[in-house]
Amino acid sequence: MGAAMAGHLLSKGHALTVSSRTRSKAEGLLQQGARWAESPAQVAAESDVVFTMVGFPMDVSDVYLGEAGLVQQARVGMVFVDMTTAPPSLAGTIAETIKARGAHFLDAPVSGGDVGARNASLSIMVGGETGVMEAIRPLFESLGQTIVHQGATGAGQHAKLCNQIVIAGTMIGVCESLLYGSRAGLDLETMLQSIRGGAAACWALDNLAPRILARNFDPGFFVEHFVKDMGMALEESRRMRLVLPGLALVHQLYLAVQAHGHGRSGTQALMLALEELSNVRVSAGRAEPSQ
Amino acid sequence: MGAAMAGHLLSKGHALTVSSRTRSKAEGLLQQGARWAESPAQVAAESDVVFTMVGFPMDVSDVYLGEAGLVQQARVGMVFVDMTTAPPSLAGTIAETIKARGAHFLDAPVSGGDVGARNASLSIMVGGETGVMEAIRPLFESLGQTIVHQGATGAGQHAKLCNQIVIAGTMIGVCESLLYGSRAGLDLETMLQSIRGGAAACWALDNLAPRILARNFDPGFFVEHFVKDMGMALEESRRMRLVLPGLALVHQLYLAVQAHGHGRSGTQALMLALEELSNVRVSAGRAEPSQ
Repeated sequence: MGAAMAGHLLSKGHALTVSSRTRSKAEGLLQQGARWAESPAQVAAESDVVFTMVGFPMDVSDVYLGEAGLVQQARVGMVFVDMTTAPPSLAGTIAETIKARGAHFLDAPVSGGDVGARNASLSIMVGGETGVMEAIRPLFESLGQTIVHQGATGAGQHAKLCNQIVIAGTMIGVCESLLYGSRAGLDLETMLQSIRGGAAACWALDNLAPRILARNFDPGFFVEHFVKDMGMALEESRRMRLVLPGLALVHQLYLAVQAHGHGRSGTQALMLALEELSNVRVSAGRAEPSQ
Repeated sequence: MGAAMAGHLLSKGHALTVSSRTRSKAEGLLQQGARWAESPAQVAAESDVVFTMVGFPMDVSDVYLGEAGLVQQARVGMVFVDMTTAPPSLAGTIAETIKARGAHFLDAPVSGGDVGARNASLSIMVGGETGVMEAIRPLFESLGQTIVHQGATGAGQHAKLCNQIVIAGTMIGVCESLLYGSRAGLDLETMLQSIRGGAAACWALDNLAPRILARNFDPGFFVEHFVKDMGMALEESRRMRLVLPGLALVHQLYLAVQAHGHGRSGTQALMLALEELSNVRVSAGRAEPSQ
């Protein structure tokens, strides 16, 4: 996603310096005129605004606070924007460290996935000072379509976790529905035709149910990243003394998906854990109702 | 819903005979020219095609198989259509009884709720013989927009239960997300703005989240009917040896909603059970993030 997003900044004519643990991921950008930096610190040294998009909280922490991290070269007036989905508390820690050097930090996780990154149609959820966000709004508008200020530092991350909590619900609903319909002998394409326009309508029904019927478990969005996001939401919930039984259940089932070696599959692989539980397999083909 | 649907048949110029346990519900139809019948049997005696739309499985059983039930007056070539959401196995029993008298039976539950019934925009899921369904298709088209044959007797009911299983997932996802966002200090309207267009998009987020923020728990769709539907889906699942942990959890939480006296509230009242569990209350107003 980071490469696609950086590409949009380049094509708008911004001077771009990039760094990545895996240099090959940046090759396309370098050919389009981006400069290579050996470390995050070097990126910061050569930039006024820095965007980060990495994988896990540990990676965010390394990129900002590590040995050759961004913070090393933070100067007065610079803006740092983390677009990774990461813990709100980590956003707080990084923001303080950066503020101490006279620079600014925004947490700005996104939804819309790889497709949204390519089409610059992402929804960007921003936490931090409004003035800082407005100052770099044109850059955000190169990357996404819906740019909304959610509140103080961490609020962008909280909003993104709200997004993931809804998705946890839609995923279990869609997968259990397909399992039920298949076992009941329905033709699942025909069933989807009836339910997709009404109160059951959801993105997962339109976009992931067809992949499940085609036994296509490619990502989309990695199981291991979704497990991370749900884990963060549950940890925040514990801290806030919130009981979220649905999220906790779906998280557990996704741990089972991961335990069976599907961490790098798409989130629709939840189906595999449910099939395993019931020892059946969803089939798109029509059969007589089993009643 | 039945009254609105019967009204569409009347306004298309069909002679209509109606019966209801509560005569007052039929007054509007009688004023528009419908004839009153004292019992289901009398409706059947005066009709070629009979539609039923009642509450619980017991009511369906009474209307068809009870003392003055429809089956008493079933004649060769008649068509009976049950649009109630009811157990697929009950559809099977009624279909056999009616077939023995030379008449036909379709199970044809709907989704789209009271609004869909008023606007004739319902999705109608039909189980039974295709030829019988096609013979009365113009009548279905007076009542709904999406009319799909799902398979043999009971398949309409199974498809409707698939619909309800998805909704169970979206409801828990949406309610837990609002609870999380509120507790995290987000402005929930603003949060919804960010998440409603992406992978979390669902009917419940668009239609029920705003009601929850307004503390409006009016139905919509009754909690007690949703509890019935989920209970039927779970019973069918047990019979088919399917494990549906998400559905089972949501069913339990809705039983808690009912236990607190909200059986005649709308399904968005799931929020009340979740608030009770965490001993907090969702507030739409903005507060500082609690992290």
